[in-house]
Amino acid sequence: MQNFEFHNPTRIVFGTETIGKLNTLLPASARVLILYGGASAKANGTLDEVKAALGDRHVQEFSGIEPNPTFETLMRAVELVRQEKLGYLLAVGGGSVIDGTKFVAAAVPFDGDPWSILEKHGRNITTALPFGSVLTLPATGSEMNNGGVVTKRAIHAKLAFSSTHTFPQFSILDPTKTYTLPPRQIANGVVDAFVHIVEQYLTYPVQAKVQDRFAEGLLQSLIETGPEALANPQDYATRANLMWIATLALNGLIGAGVPQDWSTHMIGHELTALHGIDHARTLAIVLPASLHVRRDTKHAKLLQYAERVWQIHEGSEDERIDQAIEKTRAFFERMGIATRLPDYELGAEAIDTVIAQLEAHGMTQLGEHRDVTPATSRHILEAAL
Amino acid sequence: MQNFEFHNPTRIVFGTETIGKLNTLLPASARVLILYGGASAKANGTLDEVKAALGDRHVQEFSGIEPNPTFETLMRAVELVRQEKLGYLLAVGGGSVIDGTKFVAAAVPFDGDPWSILEKHGRNITTALPFGSVLTLPATGSEMNNGGVVTKRAIHAKLAFSSTHTFPQFSILDPTKTYTLPPRQIANGVVDAFVHIVEQYLTYPVQAKVQDRFAEGLLQSLIETGPEALANPQDYATRANLMWIATLALNGLIGAGVPQDWSTHMIGHELTALHGIDHARTLAIVLPASLHVRRDTKHAKLLQYAERVWQIHEGSEDERIDQAIEKTRAFFERMGIATRLPDYELGAEAIDTVIAQLEAHGMTQLGEHRDVTPATSRHILEAAL
Repeated sequence: MQNFEFHNPTRIVFGTETIGKLNTLLPASARVLILYGGASAKANGTLDEVKAALGDRHVQEFSGIEPNPTFETLMRAVELVRQEKLGYLLAVGGGSVIDGTKFVAAAVPFDGDPWSILEKHGRNITTALPFGSVLTLPATGSEMNNGGVVTKRAIHAKLAFSSTHTFPQFSILDPTKTYTLPPRQIANGVVDAFVHIVEQYLTYPVQAKVQDRFAEGLLQSLIETGPEALANPQDYATRANLMWIATLALNGLIGAGVPQDWSTHMIGHELTALHGIDHARTLAIVLPASLHVRRDTKHAKLLQYAERVWQIHEGSEDERIDQAIEKTRAFFERMGIATRLPDYELGAEAIDTVIAQLEAHGMTQLGEHRDVTPATSRHILEAAL
Repeated sequence: MQNFEFHNPTRIVFGTETIGKLNTLLPASARVLILYGGASAKANGTLDEVKAALGDRHVQEFSGIEPNPTFETLMRAVELVRQEKLGYLLAVGGGSVIDGTKFVAAAVPFDGDPWSILEKHGRNITTALPFGSVLTLPATGSEMNNGGVVTKRAIHAKLAFSSTHTFPQFSILDPTKTYTLPPRQIANGVVDAFVHIVEQYLTYPVQAKVQDRFAEGLLQSLIETGPEALANPQDYATRANLMWIATLALNGLIGAGVPQDWSTHMIGHELTALHGIDHARTLAIVLPASLHVRRDTKHAKLLQYAERVWQIHEGSEDERIDQAIEKTRAFFERMGIATRLPDYELGAEAIDTVIAQLEAHGMTQLGEHRDVTPATSRHILEAAL
């Protein structure tokens, strides 16, 4: 096991009828900005419920935070907060809204051009406004971590940041608020959480028994829960499990003390920034191809993954690894998510630009061994054709 | 899944050469009291290392905190802190020292008789001194939770308390500091952690997939790690796994959203208070007997435990449950811990007094169904003969 620090101060309030607790979770005197995405938070009543719970507090709203939230949009929220002297941010939505809220929280008191927060991946954040979240979409884990991803539309750049100052103070997780989500968003969420776990698990062994068992338990639970969540949208236990799995997939716990990969995310980010493909779908394209290309350096963990997650016990080592990769791909496809570039109308001609963008963003030594060079990324994308 | 809140702000600093980080973890101006147990913290050099890391701070020491820390001893520490106007407590030791430190932290600013903190199980704590810990014994999980147990010697009472105010601010977990522990303490720690997990897992199903998988993963890891830790005291990976397992066994995570039992602990506490038997050993006596007596209300979970933790797939349901209970008992015995009352020179004549003490302490409706009455506790103790 590697040395690590683990510190996650976010309070999770989980279950039905929990939005009313906002009244005790926010300071009574808070001047609040509610940040959300589009019409769905309004249509499903969550926004009204949130406002009712906030009682007499001064509350303003900022809507229109996109999937893959943009710097351009978020800077308008920053201006509003500064102008109106608001002091507490409340994200109501999924990972994009929460990621965007984290950026706003850090950008408001930031001295200088806030884009540099992204360029320095958050290392230059020294303070942030307090904020909480009401989660409506299980997927990214942003509700219980300190990271975010923001896209600058003008330059097709999608960059990640994190800071000890950008943990939500609390997150409310009410599984019933996910009942009305479209199947596409549920499927995306399942795949996103799956790949988050794999990025922290499927590297090389460091004798970290619990981290491995926890990751495997999350994957097994997700493999059971994903299809159920599509089939029975209003089954409480299914949605509750999905929500808690997605949160634990990226709250720092399973990644503490182990090597981490994240190359699938970095390559996927470029596909989203260039072609607007949903984040989770880019991961579904890249991961199976990446496991195939990198099967030698991931050999031991791929065998463990095959055995413990997919119960594959027969065949040669290579055959078991092939089966595990194919089962991974089949799971994504079963969730309704295609796993090859041509399914998104991209062919070999698209690869050069992705590689150029990876190089432009300094993504030239990715993965747990820093050996995913642009040449390796090219092999991975070719294997995804 | 049941509704829950999860909030655990303790910072974990895990690994080799981590004690030096104390200098940044404590405020520079802190007036510190180091609390510890006996000679071992001194002999193995940990105490000197801690003092060196604290640099120029005003530091005093309080030694002599017993296993099963006593109210009588801890109140002397409370007096010292008040008299010397110390402001930061640092526990150096295992669960007893950390539990005791939590009590001191709450008792120093407490208005009234501090014994009432125990009588009210901590519900009357409104503030506490800040404190951290340097863990030297993996076992109780106290390093990453807000609970403690204190014994009042004068009346043979061992009572538990918890409060949102009594989380350690940080805990340093250096596995190398456990290399010199006697085998008896390692064995106790393994059994203690095992039973912590079981108290939160082996109840009845509430469709909490992740909590179940995490608990099973911890139990499987502990079953592998326990005997290794006895056989190879200086194997870093083994001690690291044991330390992290024991912490995660009782940091609130696996118990969030699920029913909990804790009757084994409550019955065990009386055996310790009356007869001085090591805490873990009382659990090893009570648990197998309790699972046997309560096999009907725990039926579904016992079958799951048999299958997933012990890989028992053959035989009738009753046979599988019998096998799982016997494997549990055999694991404790393999760790060198006897599992029946006569092994501790106690016979049927001892049972009446234990039952009387349970009644005196209001422990008359224990367990996840509140159905462990004094009559059931008697059956359990009889089954442990």
